[in-house]
Amino acid sequence: MNDTSLVRPLKVVGQRPIRPDGADKVTGRANFGADQALPGMLTGRIKRSPHAHARIVDIDTAAARALPGVKAVVTAADFAQLGSESIEQGESAGTLGHVSANCMAREKVLYVGHAVAAVAATSPEIAEEALRRIEVRYELLPHVIDVEAAMAPDAPLLHEDLFTTGMTPSPTAPSNVAAKTVIGRGDPAKGFAEADLVLERRYVTAAVHQGYIEPHACVASAGADGQHQIWCSSQGHFAVRAMCAKILGLRLQDIRVTPAEIGGGFGGKTTVYLEPVALALSLKCGRPVRLVMSRDEVFQASGPTSASVIEARIGATRDGRITAAELTMKYQAGAYPGSAIGAGCMAALACYAIENVSIVGYDVVSNRAKVAAYRAPGAPMAAFAVESCLDELAQQLGLDPIDLRLANAVKPGMKAVYGPTFREIAFVETLEAIKAHPHYRAPLGPHQGRGVACGFWFNIGGESSAAVHVDADGGATVVSSNPDIGGSRASMAMMAAETLGLPIERVRATVADTASIGYSDLTGGSRVTFATGMAVVQAAQKVVDDLRRRAALTWDCPIEQVEWRDGTAACTDPAKEERPLTLAELAARSARTGGPISAEVSLNAQGAGPGFGVHLCDLEIDPETGRSTVLRYTAAQDVGRAIHPSYVEGQIQGGVAQGVGWALNEAYLYDASGTLENPGFLDYRMPVASDLPMIETILIETAPNKRHPFGAKGVGEVPIVPPLAAVANAVTRVIGVRLTELPLSPPRVLEAIDAASGKA
Amino acid sequence: MNDTSLVRPLKVVGQRPIRPDGADKVTGRANFGADQALPGMLTGRIKRSPHAHARIVDIDTAAARALPGVKAVVTAADFAQLGSESIEQGESAGTLGHVSANCMAREKVLYVGHAVAAVAATSPEIAEEALRRIEVRYELLPHVIDVEAAMAPDAPLLHEDLFTTGMTPSPTAPSNVAAKTVIGRGDPAKGFAEADLVLERRYVTAAVHQGYIEPHACVASAGADGQHQIWCSSQGHFAVRAMCAKILGLRLQDIRVTPAEIGGGFGGKTTVYLEPVALALSLKCGRPVRLVMSRDEVFQASGPTSASVIEARIGATRDGRITAAELTMKYQAGAYPGSAIGAGCMAALACYAIENVSIVGYDVVSNRAKVAAYRAPGAPMAAFAVESCLDELAQQLGLDPIDLRLANAVKPGMKAVYGPTFREIAFVETLEAIKAHPHYRAPLGPHQGRGVACGFWFNIGGESSAAVHVDADGGATVVSSNPDIGGSRASMAMMAAETLGLPIERVRATVADTASIGYSDLTGGSRVTFATGMAVVQAAQKVVDDLRRRAALTWDCPIEQVEWRDGTAACTDPAKEERPLTLAELAARSARTGGPISAEVSLNAQGAGPGFGVHLCDLEIDPETGRSTVLRYTAAQDVGRAIHPSYVEGQIQGGVAQGVGWALNEAYLYDASGTLENPGFLDYRMPVASDLPMIETILIETAPNKRHPFGAKGVGEVPIVPPLAAVANAVTRVIGVRLTELPLSPPRVLEAIDAASGKA
Repeated sequence: MNDTSLVRPLKVVGQRPIRPDGADKVTGRANFGADQALPGMLTGRIKRSPHAHARIVDIDTAAARALPGVKAVVTAADFAQLGSESIEQGESAGTLGHVSANCMAREKVLYVGHAVAAVAATSPEIAEEALRRIEVRYELLPHVIDVEAAMAPDAPLLHEDLFTTGMTPSPTAPSNVAAKTVIGRGDPAKGFAEADLVLERRYVTAAVHQGYIEPHACVASAGADGQHQIWCSSQGHFAVRAMCAKILGLRLQDIRVTPAEIGGGFGGKTTVYLEPVALALSLKCGRPVRLVMSRDEVFQASGPTSASVIEARIGATRDGRITAAELTMKYQAGAYPGSAIGAGCMAALACYAIENVSIVGYDVVSNRAKVAAYRAPGAPMAAFAVESCLDELAQQLGLDPIDLRLANAVKPGMKAVYGPTFREIAFVETLEAIKAHPHYRAPLGPHQGRGVACGFWFNIGGESSAAVHVDADGGATVVSSNPDIGGSRASMAMMAAETLGLPIERVRATVADTASIGYSDLTGGSRVTFATGMAVVQAAQKVVDDLRRRAALTWDCPIEQVEWRDGTAACTDPAKEERPLTLAELAARSARTGGPISAEVSLNAQGAGPGFGVHLCDLEIDPETGRSTVLRYTAAQDVGRAIHPSYVEGQIQGGVAQGVGWALNEAYLYDASGTLENPGFLDYRMPVASDLPMIETILIETAPNKRHPFGAKGVGEVPIVPPLAAVANAVTRVIGVRLTELPLSPPRVLEAIDAASGKA
Repeated sequence: MNDTSLVRPLKVVGQRPIRPDGADKVTGRANFGADQALPGMLTGRIKRSPHAHARIVDIDTAAARALPGVKAVVTAADFAQLGSESIEQGESAGTLGHVSANCMAREKVLYVGHAVAAVAATSPEIAEEALRRIEVRYELLPHVIDVEAAMAPDAPLLHEDLFTTGMTPSPTAPSNVAAKTVIGRGDPAKGFAEADLVLERRYVTAAVHQGYIEPHACVASAGADGQHQIWCSSQGHFAVRAMCAKILGLRLQDIRVTPAEIGGGFGGKTTVYLEPVALALSLKCGRPVRLVMSRDEVFQASGPTSASVIEARIGATRDGRITAAELTMKYQAGAYPGSAIGAGCMAALACYAIENVSIVGYDVVSNRAKVAAYRAPGAPMAAFAVESCLDELAQQLGLDPIDLRLANAVKPGMKAVYGPTFREIAFVETLEAIKAHPHYRAPLGPHQGRGVACGFWFNIGGESSAAVHVDADGGATVVSSNPDIGGSRASMAMMAAETLGLPIERVRATVADTASIGYSDLTGGSRVTFATGMAVVQAAQKVVDDLRRRAALTWDCPIEQVEWRDGTAACTDPAKEERPLTLAELAARSARTGGPISAEVSLNAQGAGPGFGVHLCDLEIDPETGRSTVLRYTAAQDVGRAIHPSYVEGQIQGGVAQGVGWALNEAYLYDASGTLENPGFLDYRMPVASDLPMIETILIETAPNKRHPFGAKGVGEVPIVPPLAAVANAVTRVIGVRLTELPLSPPRVLEAIDAASGKA
């Protein structure tokens, strides 16, 4: 770690160079997962369950296999039988057995859309006809969709072998509750006794989808020599490699995965759906196979985030000191265990210095698609509950909502509810920035209201590899193995340029495949700028040391006498009278000083700083329709240091947009048979640009992360945490009724208005 | 450098594991240059000159551009004006200006097939129609094909600005002689005076093509953001990047080149023909463009090797000591300077310890395709002359041809004719191996003869980068940036496996693109096993040191106490009683000991050992037709140490096959207009499997190269050097007439038989 740069004036970091991938993306030139084409490539299609819960009695693929043009058919029989070994999938974890069964149902189908078989054929038409010819006999079973219904003792059981973990004593009967999580400190009973006001509320959120523009897509090509290749749209090609290897009984070295450009992920592309199926098909027929999901399939069979029910009880003194908090959090996991309940419990109260806390969380399976990570997984629903409750406390105590939070805000040196001690954090400064902003005092018109809410996210570090290669003409390439989902090519190039002393135009950043660069954990947890950035900076520092060594060789002086400034080696011995050598000059003669100039660094980064956000939302509600229009939105965030401020602002704006959608409109709607009723963007209403005002951002850089060479913290997840409550608190201020169930769609708001006015 | 392995017993090096790319290649699954496909890709076509020499008065592309479906048309106006900066193209060099003008003619066309314009269109048919619609007005000029005719004072001049280099004083008039090379030592006049026998002969060889199976092919895709990509069939994707960048006025960082599998190169894929053209087309229209040569185009417009005329004068004493040698060597370079005359002059007499030497070489342009490197460039023709002459000396002196060579053979410690002092060489052992082989004494039948000849090649080192990455499940990947044209994936994996102590099955070798790994010189000069192998072994050693460090961390002991044996860390402190940790165990816990295990090494390798070959050829000549049939062929070679003996044997067998073709049948035939008459495999007769016996190989491993960790020398080029003379010497022994002009095609041999018998 080298934090001298924190004091040195920076030339590239903090600037706003043009994004390197922009023009290719807006002109349609960028190559995404579905763009890969190989000679002899087949079209794959997946047959999916029409039932929410059923036993598979029999699958007859003979007629499909007999169809001319069909080259391969696979079912679960083609996948390895896997147990409970866990596997990284970003911020949520799952067992390999469940990942495999989710890709291809084994004994039972657990949700409408669950894959039961797949075909590869010479045309889409033949592939679809083949699907029709596959006959699956099902024995129907009762199903359960809702999280609390699934927890009921008499609920239909999804997994006969699922016993709740985290219980003492261990349960003897299986259940849909996969895990119980408990976090606590102090004495909540004593805390509530000290309170002047205790609120007890129940909050409900709907399942929402990450809504990435690009559906899941991949091409797999099994090699005759046992070296197989996959091209895919993924947040982590090393994770894809690991999962495919395990699911198909291969070794890591047998699979080379190349990441395509990615049209959004938001956590939803941290696991596999298609890749093992495409590779299994290719292994069977020896030809490349492309699988691309339709939007229907994305909605039905790829992970949304959890629906949730959170019961909150929070007590405070008259002057706004929170004395105790109790939360019971029920997160729906979908068909297999693994909601983000753990992170949700840990994040729920992380903004506040509360002495007496009790949090209990439940991870609950039900007959819907397995959830996947979604931007700050588990935290937005928890913040919706806590920040709604705090807003109501402030209202009832007659306190300013920001003052209430300032009175309880965590500060550096305090121990977080979830364990560790905070180091460089700036939550107080972030709250104060919003409080001081003109927006906070701007007048509101009729039917308008203003909500405030806060959010927290951990951010993570982890394993990363990066290399820096110097070109003979004085440019440099930065290689990492993290798919660029949020601008990491720009930030990696900038950090390398800063360290090397090159203008940003002379540094290219690329993402290499699994066979070309060292291992990295996937792109998630807001880890890349921090952890991979650290590897990039260390690799660039090694290059600088190598350049100094080569200059010393040229000048025949000790390396200690060579200083690196602004991309130039200078000899500090005035007696030498050597003209400084630029990086380009040293690169041009590299063959004579030891060969190509390159360095690779692999590390496991520790000390990612957590981030805090404070959001302010003004909205207006049409009293005739109940429709909310967001009028003004300001988001302040503790970002450590912004490497490329425009991307940081973009992350904040994107997180707010998704949070507003979650708050106002988005929801998975199921019919009585357990079928998703709105698997498309017409009926699943995500905000579009015209739905939102320009979102103003405030970057708080008063607490740079000392573990990172330039002070960076993760910034991508925090901004989706506050909007649910910020929007709901604003709605409450307009209609005078507190709504505790999302989404705050026009019918629901209108119903509340009508009920309040006695119309209903 | 670590040569301890030279004494340690080796477990992987020297074994014959199954080649990693075999099954994919024989089943047609491997992806070659023409297999790359991209969305929206266009078909490119090149318009070529029908004239051997003409001034381009005007090119009218309007009608082509107006054709619907035509998206781009380029001419030389789209290429940068480049000067005389030289650029690496394997073992031959050229100026960038000439490389560019060879890709697209500027003021003049210099050979039939010279590119004058190119189009990109939505279909091959449209592209071809567009070529027809391009109108080029030429002013015809007289042309010259033959090398000696081109040297004549009144010869048509190709380049008005070409002045012979290496002359004192510098010439004042331009000429077709691009360069004069002089090598000498001692006093030839004195040497010849000491000789008992002096032979003076003139030897002629025809231009022959490398004859790779796969024609040149590439896809270029210009990025809207200035990051362009090329996929191509090349021996050096870094060289392609460098040449395309210069020719199109781009920076190295602007181009990312990915090498495809390569269907043969033999030196002929060390320069560019299509890549800058495809990229220029793509830059114009913003769509990917594929260019693939037809076989006609390969013959007419990609580099064959030089035709040559060599005048030799060699003197020897009665007992076979060579007292002096004088050579005048004229190599045809094609349309632009840059035959391998320099290497030819240096290699010509490198096998022999001759005190008095004078070699003069000429590099001569003429109106034919620019030559390219071809396996031991320049050496086979020189060896044809020298080894033919030595054979005749032996005949006339009544000496055994091997004894004559033994009497003059170079030995370790001697100074080579071309300068340096030989270190670990085994030419004497190689000669003795052939002399001791039963083949040398096997009886011959009627019309059968036996020829012997020797050959030398330098082999080179140079710049290479390689990385070793350890997988979490205990496998490893070796990454290099040298396209695998002769089995380098196998040898790199073997050397890494040996160093890591892994079975070969657990190591994969891959070739990464220019943006993913450090720079390497191209695959040529027989450098890869030596130089890149050295980088691989050093990277693997760094990994081993890292594994030892991690074991020490685990055991809390100094790293010096951790020994690495057979893929396992062992603690040498008996008090510790630690169970050894395997690489797989250390890899599985790598996240807790510092992150991923990886190392990259870049170096400029020095000390590639030269190689020597001694070949023995039996053939039978049909006196009715003059057709030669090779009956038996034995090739011994000083290989240092064979990493994978089967590949080394394959290299020797392949070199022999190509040399036999050069000797017996292959030749470029031009008509009076300067048009190549046989641009196809029907009329250009290369040997096929049924033309050759199984070629027996003898690997001489008595002189391992001490500069390489396992003793390797380059092996791929030596074996094409002796066959021309070995075959010719055998023919001479059959027909009793010495033929000094290649190829020894049936008509030419029949004519000699007839002349000798007085029939002609």
